[in-house]
Amino acid sequence: MPLVLMQHGGLASLTGKTGLAMLRHRPGPIVAVIDPEHAGERLDLVTGIARPVPVVRDLAEALPYGPTVAVVGLAPSGGGLPDAMRTDVLAALDAGLSIASGLHSYLNDDQELQAALQPGRWIWDLRREPAGLGVGKARAAALPCQRILAVGTDMAVGKMSACLAVHEAATRAGVPSAFVGTGQAGILISGQGVPLDAVRVDFAAGAVEAAVLSAAKALPPKGLLLVEGQGSLCHPGSTATLPLLRGSQPTALMMVHRAQQSTIDRLPDIPLPSLEELVAICESLAAIARPIGSPAAPRVRALALNTARLDDQQALKVVEQVGERLGIVCRDPIRHGADDLLQALMSP
Amino acid sequence: MPLVLMQHGGLASLTGKTGLAMLRHRPGPIVAVIDPEHAGERLDLVTGIARPVPVVRDLAEALPYGPTVAVVGLAPSGGGLPDAMRTDVLAALDAGLSIASGLHSYLNDDQELQAALQPGRWIWDLRREPAGLGVGKARAAALPCQRILAVGTDMAVGKMSACLAVHEAATRAGVPSAFVGTGQAGILISGQGVPLDAVRVDFAAGAVEAAVLSAAKALPPKGLLLVEGQGSLCHPGSTATLPLLRGSQPTALMMVHRAQQSTIDRLPDIPLPSLEELVAICESLAAIARPIGSPAAPRVRALALNTARLDDQQALKVVEQVGERLGIVCRDPIRHGADDLLQALMSP
Repeated sequence: MPLVLMQHGGLASLTGKTGLAMLRHRPGPIVAVIDPEHAGERLDLVTGIARPVPVVRDLAEALPYGPTVAVVGLAPSGGGLPDAMRTDVLAALDAGLSIASGLHSYLNDDQELQAALQPGRWIWDLRREPAGLGVGKARAAALPCQRILAVGTDMAVGKMSACLAVHEAATRAGVPSAFVGTGQAGILISGQGVPLDAVRVDFAAGAVEAAVLSAAKALPPKGLLLVEGQGSLCHPGSTATLPLLRGSQPTALMMVHRAQQSTIDRLPDIPLPSLEELVAICESLAAIARPIGSPAAPRVRALALNTARLDDQQALKVVEQVGERLGIVCRDPIRHGADDLLQALMSP
Repeated sequence: MPLVLMQHGGLASLTGKTGLAMLRHRPGPIVAVIDPEHAGERLDLVTGIARPVPVVRDLAEALPYGPTVAVVGLAPSGGGLPDAMRTDVLAALDAGLSIASGLHSYLNDDQELQAALQPGRWIWDLRREPAGLGVGKARAAALPCQRILAVGTDMAVGKMSACLAVHEAATRAGVPSAFVGTGQAGILISGQGVPLDAVRVDFAAGAVEAAVLSAAKALPPKGLLLVEGQGSLCHPGSTATLPLLRGSQPTALMMVHRAQQSTIDRLPDIPLPSLEELVAICESLAAIARPIGSPAAPRVRALALNTARLDDQQALKVVEQVGERLGIVCRDPIRHGADDLLQALMSP
């Protein structure tokens, strides 16, 4: 399915995180990126992503590249559709494209957009709670595949990237592997998963359970399921860790941390606990609410350390130090590859 | 506000839990209870609740008692409006009553009910997510009042009853106290709180935070805020503990457990951890995601033990044994009163 990414003003900023992640990780074709602020520039020079995708001014300029789906790749504060993008969403619908959107406000509920939708096309609000959910029952515990859940020390430390890197390492190593997205970027990249943020508390664990059971169907018994983490136990606004733990019933945990970060990024008065303390909390929390007869409680078997803010030498040093301190494999999957993380996570 | 409770078929069963809790704890007038299965019988003989409220057959029979609001006090599986009750809800609307409903399906979205609604009356779907929510920021940590959160070993072990008992003990002792409901019964009893089950994961901690900040406004600095617990860390389908901890930033925890229960009630293959283990997990989880400069991390200071399934002698014995084992005050608040629990929770 050839996509055009709508990144209006978000190609070089944090609000464009979803689209940038798709450019980095989505296997399928992305035929153009719309950002009037960078139209005509080279994608790799603006974003550092070495994918040969033209950057164009608007939807009209993207049409010659043959997209069939337009993806809203921004996560603006407020969650609504920015005016500048609205014009191009309407143009895309008029041109017979379908729309995928991860915005908090649902495009399906927008009368003007609905009116512009052509027959046989769709608007997918992927952040809408799935239908038919139930309360979680730990059913994932009975799956034969391994289930790795990423748990982070903060939002936006690299949980999705670490999972995708391990997933790609597994694929290269011939290990049957699937990635279950739990946020908008992860869902758009993998085409499966659950928009956990949008699910009601009552059904949160059940929604993760349903997504994990569904993804496992395509895996052989010895396969590997990578469940994207969300939020953090250390963040006072985050609720996701608990339904992720209960719904996925992980067989191992991968901790994800940004090197040298000591407080929550946007709440500097909230200190992070030590990694040792957090490992202990995660493991004791993961050890309960599991069926009788389950295998040994999951351990934190690897630490993915985000060293993007350090130079190469510092990165190597800190990865070594932290790994030794915790007694587990520690790597920056972006910098050092994810083969060692994969091996640590898969060891019995 | 004189209420009529609609308990169709739920006066003597678990589906009627919400209405029964209102009969037990709501200070305001309840003028009649509708349950065709027990019409004409004495409420205390059917339910054990010594409140002089007539049990009638249908809405028509309740009208002479002068209700202005009809409350849907059932929580049927599926979450919809049972047919038998629908007739009486329509009759109530026709008669000019307002409706409060804690059903999962929203009565406001029902065209037929909307059409029957009289001018100046309302339908309150209290399980609808509140408007204007944000992400939690640990703002409750700055409140001067004490904040007690109930954490349970399972659903339906008596968290709300324990909180209400402590709240009532505080009121009797002259301690300014407020109860924040977090489920439909608690909200209907106290008139404030948050329907946590119905809130999206993204806003769950923020919703609890908002409810706690709002309830604290009416309290003096030395007041006591009792936050109703929901779900359990031990239940694989439950997500509520984390947003409750983060949103309320408790100063102390009250654990609630049903004596001699060893597995999750409806999932007998999920064992409960030992109380010692669960206390440790709760305390370590509650110790993080708190602002720098917060007072000492909250401890589990009291155990409310539900001994409803034991006789008096057994109850006394088990309360003593468990309290001694854990080294904290342990009482059945329904059987032994909540004064000792209150004192333990308020001790500095």
